[in-house]
Amino acid sequence: MHRTKVRVVEDALDANNTIARANRDDFDRAGVAVANLMGAPGAGKTALLEYVLSDLGGVRAGVLEGDVQGTLDADRLASLHVPVTQLQTGDGFGGECHLDANMVRSALPSIPLSDIDLLIIENVGNLVCPAEFAVGEDARAMVYAVTEGEEKPLKYPVMFRAADVVVVNKVDLLPHLDFDLPRFLANLADVNPDATVIQASSRTGEGVDAWCAWLLDLVAAR
Amino acid sequence: MHRTKVRVVEDALDANNTIARANRDDFDRAGVAVANLMGAPGAGKTALLEYVLSDLGGVRAGVLEGDVQGTLDADRLASLHVPVTQLQTGDGFGGECHLDANMVRSALPSIPLSDIDLLIIENVGNLVCPAEFAVGEDARAMVYAVTEGEEKPLKYPVMFRAADVVVVNKVDLLPHLDFDLPRFLANLADVNPDATVIQASSRTGEGVDAWCAWLLDLVAAR
Repeated sequence: MHRTKVRVVEDALDANNTIARANRDDFDRAGVAVANLMGAPGAGKTALLEYVLSDLGGVRAGVLEGDVQGTLDADRLASLHVPVTQLQTGDGFGGECHLDANMVRSALPSIPLSDIDLLIIENVGNLVCPAEFAVGEDARAMVYAVTEGEEKPLKYPVMFRAADVVVVNKVDLLPHLDFDLPRFLANLADVNPDATVIQASSRTGEGVDAWCAWLLDLVAAR
Repeated sequence: MHRTKVRVVEDALDANNTIARANRDDFDRAGVAVANLMGAPGAGKTALLEYVLSDLGGVRAGVLEGDVQGTLDADRLASLHVPVTQLQTGDGFGGECHLDANMVRSALPSIPLSDIDLLIIENVGNLVCPAEFAVGEDARAMVYAVTEGEEKPLKYPVMFRAADVVVVNKVDLLPHLDFDLPRFLANLADVNPDATVIQASSRTGEGVDAWCAWLLDLVAAR
């Protein structure tokens, strides 16, 4: 339906990958493991970060916080005394719905790479586009809330397929939802049988240990 | 940060508006009222549609269903015996995260405009981009789930500002959430004091009458 448009997008993605590799080189030189944290708005990305940042057992973490506008999430995380850099994709019509490699590159001078072991890049809340743009990460983590419904891996397969780990969040709400967890897990396995799956609740703390362990493994694999 | 890119986006939006006006002319000629239904993935757009489509008091409704992939929502709605047209924004990297006027225009021949009074265009689940692209609608409706958190109007102001009505969905879950409803409503009023606000639950049926009434007013205002 949009062949011309698709071609333009692919060209843009090639340029993106070139810059993502440059970012990756910089992260490698600094010895910093990088996770690209994605998910829909309200899935609980920031809340799960609050949990892990407060106790990562000696691993020094930093955050690059992507938002369309404002510094609400960065302010929340900065209170945990980790270095947080805010990246805003712009206002109004110029506001991108995802981070790309060039945006991350422009933020690199503001990130104290030599003082951290792990950089978590919290992407803009969006279940579509962030998965299409590498930013130089080692791995992609996705937070998915059970309130979003069990059919979403089939409707938005690109991000579920791209994720190395899927944190299935807000499981404390399961008793109050018509959410069919086995069906969701089967849908997820259909599009991405290799993903690590962690059931978690940033409210009760369930699964947070496994989420921390996944991040620490990423650092150890460096 | 991305001045060149912003200019390109604005050019594209101008072309979009030209096509949106052409769509609008076609809707006007057919006497069809059009609502652009937006919201994050899992906010409950389709569930709220299921409610209203089954009983609109003689008003003949049709649906244009926008998804990145698949026909799950269209299949759900088609069982209600209303004309449903599926519009897929594509696979993989070419899959757009929103509908634009040209996509809707390409679907017009498949929509029986002469047989309906109301067309509801269910946009791709996304809290950012759909609000930036007019498609020829009379009004914009937004579905927002209380599970998404009370600060989102401040983080994603474009869509909240564009909405004529905000359906605050899943209020049946409020007893189980740390969601500050008055604070959310204040945040919403900050960015859009003119929006109609309807508190609803597609699970209990609360607020569905008001949502139906809003749609019927749209048809009556034609």
